[in-house]
Amino acid sequence: MGKTHDTIRAMVWTGTALELLDQRKLPHEESWLVLRDCASVADAIRDMVVRGAPAIGISAAYAVVLAAQARYANGGGLMALEDDLDQLSAARPTAVNLKWAVERMRCCARAAKDDPVAILLAEAKAIHDEDIAANRAMGEAGAAFISSGSGVLTHCNTGSLATGGYGTALGVIRSAWAAGKLNAVYADETRPWLQGARLTAWELVQDNIPVTLLADGAAAWLMQQGRVQWVIVGSDRIAANGDVANKIGTYAAAVAARYHGVKFMVVAPSSTVDMDTASGADIPIEARAAEEVLQVGGQPVAAAGAQAWNPAFDVTPAELVDVIVTERGVVERPNLAKMRSLMA
Amino acid sequence: MGKTHDTIRAMVWTGTALELLDQRKLPHEESWLVLRDCASVADAIRDMVVRGAPAIGISAAYAVVLAAQARYANGGGLMALEDDLDQLSAARPTAVNLKWAVERMRCCARAAKDDPVAILLAEAKAIHDEDIAANRAMGEAGAAFISSGSGVLTHCNTGSLATGGYGTALGVIRSAWAAGKLNAVYADETRPWLQGARLTAWELVQDNIPVTLLADGAAAWLMQQGRVQWVIVGSDRIAANGDVANKIGTYAAAVAARYHGVKFMVVAPSSTVDMDTASGADIPIEARAAEEVLQVGGQPVAAAGAQAWNPAFDVTPAELVDVIVTERGVVERPNLAKMRSLMA
Repeated sequence: MGKTHDTIRAMVWTGTALELLDQRKLPHEESWLVLRDCASVADAIRDMVVRGAPAIGISAAYAVVLAAQARYANGGGLMALEDDLDQLSAARPTAVNLKWAVERMRCCARAAKDDPVAILLAEAKAIHDEDIAANRAMGEAGAAFISSGSGVLTHCNTGSLATGGYGTALGVIRSAWAAGKLNAVYADETRPWLQGARLTAWELVQDNIPVTLLADGAAAWLMQQGRVQWVIVGSDRIAANGDVANKIGTYAAAVAARYHGVKFMVVAPSSTVDMDTASGADIPIEARAAEEVLQVGGQPVAAAGAQAWNPAFDVTPAELVDVIVTERGVVERPNLAKMRSLMA
Repeated sequence: MGKTHDTIRAMVWTGTALELLDQRKLPHEESWLVLRDCASVADAIRDMVVRGAPAIGISAAYAVVLAAQARYANGGGLMALEDDLDQLSAARPTAVNLKWAVERMRCCARAAKDDPVAILLAEAKAIHDEDIAANRAMGEAGAAFISSGSGVLTHCNTGSLATGGYGTALGVIRSAWAAGKLNAVYADETRPWLQGARLTAWELVQDNIPVTLLADGAAAWLMQQGRVQWVIVGSDRIAANGDVANKIGTYAAAVAARYHGVKFMVVAPSSTVDMDTASGADIPIEARAAEEVLQVGGQPVAAAGAQAWNPAFDVTPAELVDVIVTERGVVERPNLAKMRSLMA
């Protein structure tokens, strides 16, 4: 990659535990949680120790290994294991990568003749390795769309922390930066959880890629000023018709991008595509606690008595998407026929 | 008003000082600063102890009284006073109400035969009283546009804290609520300064008007869900062609409103209309410190090394505005001819 090093990893498998970098504490503290059982990983996913659809999927895959280690050590067997998997799969509703990874691991467990731990561990590592390879491929494929001298805007965090490594949308930005194509990288701070300010900026600073943060509400004005030619985001679920669920605020950026003639790119591995979900209307949108809006950094901001509306995701309709980049290929102006062709 | 009481005041004149409620510390602390000279009021405006275009104008008017008291007590006279006024007028660049109030006070001082303090005090009180009366009139005029059962979204704070009392956009919401027309009031939290979360919610909670906060990036999704029929905002300067400068994030809301067929209302006293500014392109947009984005509540959020882009305002073009409400009358689909007619 030349200009970018990207050594950040959000998860490490130790053989008997999954270690997760606690993303709630970044960038101030690099603290690792050592998780030795499946339920603890499910809790970590629910509490956003680890977030980002691909990273959630990979963490879940390792959690299945932990579950199998425990269940087969005490004679619980497949039925008990499958109960663990059902609970794990329900940790968060929107990112389909979680369900995808759990079901892939479930198939392995069912196919195993007896103790499935070894085969499950190999599968989890394969999911992890495939994700990194997919990110590298998507980085190159997405960067190919970007003209030299472009400014780009991203939302939330889609980098090494959100994936197995390198990143989806941030992978494209890394690749485009390495190719010398970018004159500016802007990142929405991404309230309420501030993934842009806390995580994306932290990753890019480490890669020596200059990053400029802005309040989410400033993004449309940034586009009006002609500073960006592409909005590049990840996804938590892409429906069969090309509708894209992603972090709340993505839809606003897509609407503003279309209004200004700025191009809108979605970058996600094919594990994010859910052909069983017909359209965005069928994607479950997680509602998170009002406190995420009413507080900042754990401190109350709003007057007592105020309520908050806090959907964690929104859906950008396919008609606002210029290109979806996956490791299987790219889809311009997505629709059902093109998505079927991609996933066939 | 019946259902709303609205006893909040952001500024009190004591005869020898201007007392300002320190809006930086709300809602956690109701702390008042006692300002006894003009330069201190200018600093308070610059540092956002007081904010909101009308409130800035009224504070500046009282600051002129303080300046005159000092200059005429020590024999400085009109020339020294006018120097004070020039510095006061430069405290913040975007809100034209500041310049408007200072120039109105300057005319009074020049017209006075000798010591102008008494006439200036009467003028400052008139500016304050006129603003409250204008807000009440705008409240009724704006509410008349809103159908029963509507949801409304507002941005920043435009209530009693931002004005002489009652509010511009929030005055319309108060009036519409009192008339029983609203089924929901949504407020953008309004990063980076969080005026929505800290100030608007505080005002509405005191008025027993239910308020639901949301992250700025969620506003477009709120509209997509059909929850609001009007976006109602204030303004810091309205150009002769009807372009509207207002708190950063307003433009994003206007773009999203148009996309969803949601109506967009701007509420501002005629002191906000600047017929000497041809269009929004001529409005100076204040750039504030990067730290407002890089920090939250005084605590760093972003990794060291990240930059930030922090324009305090943006400009919504007249073509995205459905109605401008002033105390002189309302202008639908504003343009130069209609604004000239309004201000004639």
